[in-house]
Amino acid sequence: MPLVLGLDFGGTKLAAGLATADGQLVTVARRPTIPEVGGIGAIQAMRELVDGMGERAREIVAVGLSFGGPVARDRQTTLLSHHGPGWIDFPLVERVHELWPVRIELDNDANAAALGEYRFGAGRGHQNVLYLTVSTGVGGGIVLGGRLYRGTRGLAGEVGHTIVRPDGPRCSCGKRGCVEAIAAGPSIARAYAERQPGTLGKVTAEEVFRLAASGDRTARDVLDRAITGLAIGVANAINVLDPDVVVIGGGVSRAGDALFVPLRQAVAAASAPSPPHAVPIVPATLGEGVGILGAVALTF
Amino acid sequence: MPLVLGLDFGGTKLAAGLATADGQLVTVARRPTIPEVGGIGAIQAMRELVDGMGERAREIVAVGLSFGGPVARDRQTTLLSHHGPGWIDFPLVERVHELWPVRIELDNDANAAALGEYRFGAGRGHQNVLYLTVSTGVGGGIVLGGRLYRGTRGLAGEVGHTIVRPDGPRCSCGKRGCVEAIAAGPSIARAYAERQPGTLGKVTAEEVFRLAASGDRTARDVLDRAITGLAIGVANAINVLDPDVVVIGGGVSRAGDALFVPLRQAVAAASAPSPPHAVPIVPATLGEGVGILGAVALTF
Repeated sequence: MPLVLGLDFGGTKLAAGLATADGQLVTVARRPTIPEVGGIGAIQAMRELVDGMGERAREIVAVGLSFGGPVARDRQTTLLSHHGPGWIDFPLVERVHELWPVRIELDNDANAAALGEYRFGAGRGHQNVLYLTVSTGVGGGIVLGGRLYRGTRGLAGEVGHTIVRPDGPRCSCGKRGCVEAIAAGPSIARAYAERQPGTLGKVTAEEVFRLAASGDRTARDVLDRAITGLAIGVANAINVLDPDVVVIGGGVSRAGDALFVPLRQAVAAASAPSPPHAVPIVPATLGEGVGILGAVALTF
Repeated sequence: MPLVLGLDFGGTKLAAGLATADGQLVTVARRPTIPEVGGIGAIQAMRELVDGMGERAREIVAVGLSFGGPVARDRQTTLLSHHGPGWIDFPLVERVHELWPVRIELDNDANAAALGEYRFGAGRGHQNVLYLTVSTGVGGGIVLGGRLYRGTRGLAGEVGHTIVRPDGPRCSCGKRGCVEAIAAGPSIARAYAERQPGTLGKVTAEEVFRLAASGDRTARDVLDRAITGLAIGVANAINVLDPDVVVIGGGVSRAGDALFVPLRQAVAAASAPSPPHAVPIVPATLGEGVGILGAVALTF
């Protein structure tokens, strides 16, 4: 049986998986990323993970690569990693091809995840899908007409860096009031700490959700503002793209209804002239497997 | 010589033009719209305009229709006009087909203009084009990979209703701080009148540009805020779409450098992580002919 190997080069985890042509995972293996070893070391680790999969790894007909950072698809290289050295202009496709001399496809993790959710997850059956990951950052990927839309320079889908509150908090990109500076996990934790001195570095976004659920007024206010900011970014993207569906994954999305119920309400209020609730906003469904399945989807 | 007839059903003007396959206008005729006569009357007026074109009108092989309001392309009808009665669910394509029994293509004016600028104007030679018209409203159209991208429900490109200042002025759509509520011509005039009581209905956006050029500090402040708001909308759309180029037409764009120079600067400041000035922001070049040439482009 022909199998596709999906390799997910994440900032904290490496994951390898073998999947059938219809996206059924046959076997999966993971290990923590060792940031110091760079591209060469990560490939070696991936090789060991696949070696542990035994006989089936002989049936690999294609390899998909999801990389947790920017890539240059034209040169088939990674541009850099924010997690460690050894990834600048690294010829990832060429090096992987030395191990598995088959067809290889590379993209960044947000694009791979968008395609994975489109093909195997919450975006299944749709044609135009906006995928967002709300996590330590806010990334995005766009599928239009059933294909990844990457933009002219591979920079499409950066909803995380759209400005939704020009006088808002400073973002890592240098601007003020980006969606990421308002709604990413660390941004939520920071906003809470600003109101409750002494909690910085101690209270995570997950805990802010927990505190809000238990009635903490500050936590509720902080989440209100974060969700309103995210909602404006989503509504603005809806007004530009008019997609079938918006799929949201990433750590913050695990808050479930505590995120999605108020988010849908706030998007509806911010999305005219698009009719309220016309575009469903749904949680990603691939969970931890999104990296591997996204990588697999790149080869289809 | 086979010719394409372009019909532009605008809110204030009706225009008809015959064009060659490469977009050269052979003849053009215009007359004011009479809002009271609706679709039936407008078609009659168009017929008279074309009758006046003589023999050449016999060579029409296709008709493109640009309509100044929302359309239902699936039903080939107009949905409504904001300028007068007689356009609700009006079977425009069917009625035009009775006069010219050839292939007929219909779209709203923003989409038609986007395609016109892509094919014959400032977007020529590009693949991914974001077109905005900044006029009495702010409309938009998107060309991706050389084709109109309309979105799932035909609502893509509504950059005018993206929110860029959540505490900003009220928009016609009911929300606050939309690009249209900040940067459309009447919005600029209104912002000036709020600071200079007694000028409402007397000072147009054009005059605010003139006053700013002659040193009027209030006019400068008003334009600063309008252009900053428009810039955030454009930068946000760049971060979502990553186009080759942004083309801006409409009445306000006729301000020329007084608009484009500060606009480019403000977009550069608002567009990280997209590199500053990576996406050219250029004036539309088709001017008054955009409606007819957009209609013509629909048939290609």
